[in-house]
Amino acid sequence: MSILILHILYVIAITAEAMTAALAAGRRSMDWIGVCLLGAVTALGGGSVRDVLLGHHPLVWVAHPVYLLLTAAAALATIAVARFMHRLRRMFLLLDAVGLVVFTVIGCTVATEMGMPVIVVIVAGMITGCLGGVLRDILCNDIPLLFRSELYASVSVVTGSLYVAGLSLDLPHDVVMFAAMTLGLAMRLLALRFNWNMPKFVYTQDLH
Amino acid sequence: MSILILHILYVIAITAEAMTAALAAGRRSMDWIGVCLLGAVTALGGGSVRDVLLGHHPLVWVAHPVYLLLTAAAALATIAVARFMHRLRRMFLLLDAVGLVVFTVIGCTVATEMGMPVIVVIVAGMITGCLGGVLRDILCNDIPLLFRSELYASVSVVTGSLYVAGLSLDLPHDVVMFAAMTLGLAMRLLALRFNWNMPKFVYTQDLH
Amino acid sequence: MSILILHILYVIAITAEAMTAALAAGRRSMDWIGVCLLGAVTALGGGSVRDVLLGHHPLVWVAHPVYLLLTAAAALATIAVARFMHRLRRMFLLLDAVGLVVFTVIGCTVATEMGMPVIVVIVAGMITGCLGGVLRDILCNDIPLLFRSELYASVSVVTGSLYVAGLSLDLPHDVVMFAAMTLGLAMRLLALRFNWNMPKFVYTQDLH
Repeated sequence: MSILILHILYVIAITAEAMTAALAAGRRSMDWIGVCLLGAVTALGGGSVRDVLLGHHPLVWVAHPVYLLLTAAAALATIAVARFMHRLRRMFLLLDAVGLVVFTVIGCTVATEMGMPVIVVIVAGMITGCLGGVLRDILCNDIPLLFRSELYASVSVVTGSLYVAGLSLDLPHDVVMFAAMTLGLAMRLLALRFNWNMPKFVYTQDLH
Repeated sequence: MSILILHILYVIAITAEAMTAALAAGRRSMDWIGVCLLGAVTALGGGSVRDVLLGHHPLVWVAHPVYLLLTAAAALATIAVARFMHRLRRMFLLLDAVGLVVFTVIGCTVATEMGMPVIVVIVAGMITGCLGGVLRDILCNDIPLLFRSELYASVSVVTGSLYVAGLSLDLPHDVVMFAAMTLGLAMRLLALRFNWNMPKFVYTQDLH
Repeated sequence: MSILILHILYVIAITAEAMTAALAAGRRSMDWIGVCLLGAVTALGGGSVRDVLLGHHPLVWVAHPVYLLLTAAAALATIAVARFMHRLRRMFLLLDAVGLVVFTVIGCTVATEMGMPVIVVIVAGMITGCLGGVLRDILCNDIPLLFRSELYASVSVVTGSLYVAGLSLDLPHDVVMFAAMTLGLAMRLLALRFNWNMPKFVYTQDLH
């Protein structure tokens, strides 16, 4: 049951990620293939990098290529509905936040099942949750937003840490998973609502 | 015999890719080492990413390091002959198109031999055919041309789809391979000749 | 004993790399999380790419996650001490040079132990030595310094070649290792002192 819910949330999240990536592609006037590629890479890239780094084969989209079709189709459909999407701005911010915590927990689960040490479990969650967006920004030739913006990576680290802490207390896996996701989601939404930011490090000298 | 022809085409294609990448390096005033690196990464990068994503080891240049030397040497030699290369502009566009379909078919073959589902076979062909250029553009700090330009990725998808379709009809492998390459090449050359483009998606609003 | 020295040099080097990466993050006003991420990616990225390309699992930081904490902490600590670091400019340039040769030799050792051919051994050394900085520059949205600057990659290639040549002469491994590192370090420091550069390739025509 809980696996089914997680799976449904995952499918909703990769669809939403692909759609917002399609808008980023549109802002750079990419062509339709570029839109599809950027959508699929953004939605599935975080999990792919995690699996490549951990040596966890096959990758999700290799085992389930339907996700490639789904994300590419969602990105393509975005071209038709883009003009209405600003009305759904809040919903997409919410779905993005859901995606962040769902991806994070799934990444933590994969690393836990591989018997990884806790720090690697948290990092695997962060890679899964955040790296799709980093790849999107690199392909769009931007400095990754992740590195300069509101509590995004931090939410992922907190979610992963809660997951790890819960499991180490021998609490039931599903309870831990949903508690971590709920608290992470709350933190993300509060950060958006009250505009919480990490302090920035500003350095102007040249070392070299 | 057909394997030999494919192999010769592969060697010609990676040489041509390394040479055009060297010109891109020259446009950014890279030093000689940068020229060699960009040449090798562009020529061998697509296959490397495919193998890393599919968990297919050893990589081509790990098993055959002579390709590293060949592509680096071709890039270096380009420095000497660059002034004459604009006269060979048409030939290099042709070789680039040949490389696209050869790389695509090789990528499809690798995935087919690993028993991958058809969508993954097509994607593996596209990654092999197109990702070298994406890596080149990222290293040159450009938005990948692939995402905004003429039928390049599309040719790769069509070539891969023809290959997959042909095999599913139980046609002989070599016939399918060369038919897919020929039709893909024709499509690419027609796209260049008549300036065919994918429609672009232009979006100017900020969702966030 | 020699393994211990190499290990100590490695820990010093990843710490120094993380700290200089943190300054690069500060120059782009990244937030604290961005600083930690850029520090860890720069310090551990070269070895990670090498291991992914060679199929050498687990990665260093997966087997020893303490390095993740060390590099992230070193990057974070840099925020506090940044104002004093320009006084230590020479020391950091020296540590960066030490890191280059230490990473290179470690990369060569890993590939040698996997039974790789000599060219792949040298390339594995270069990837380990240089790719952390390339990832840093891509994430900072710069053209990688490696491709346009003083003898950096060249030092790595020379160090790796000396290592391979020494082993092929059946000299004792530790002697070869420290001789290659010493000569590579000397070359790098001379290049910095006398401002040695690779010739650049400047090309202004458009092929396409």
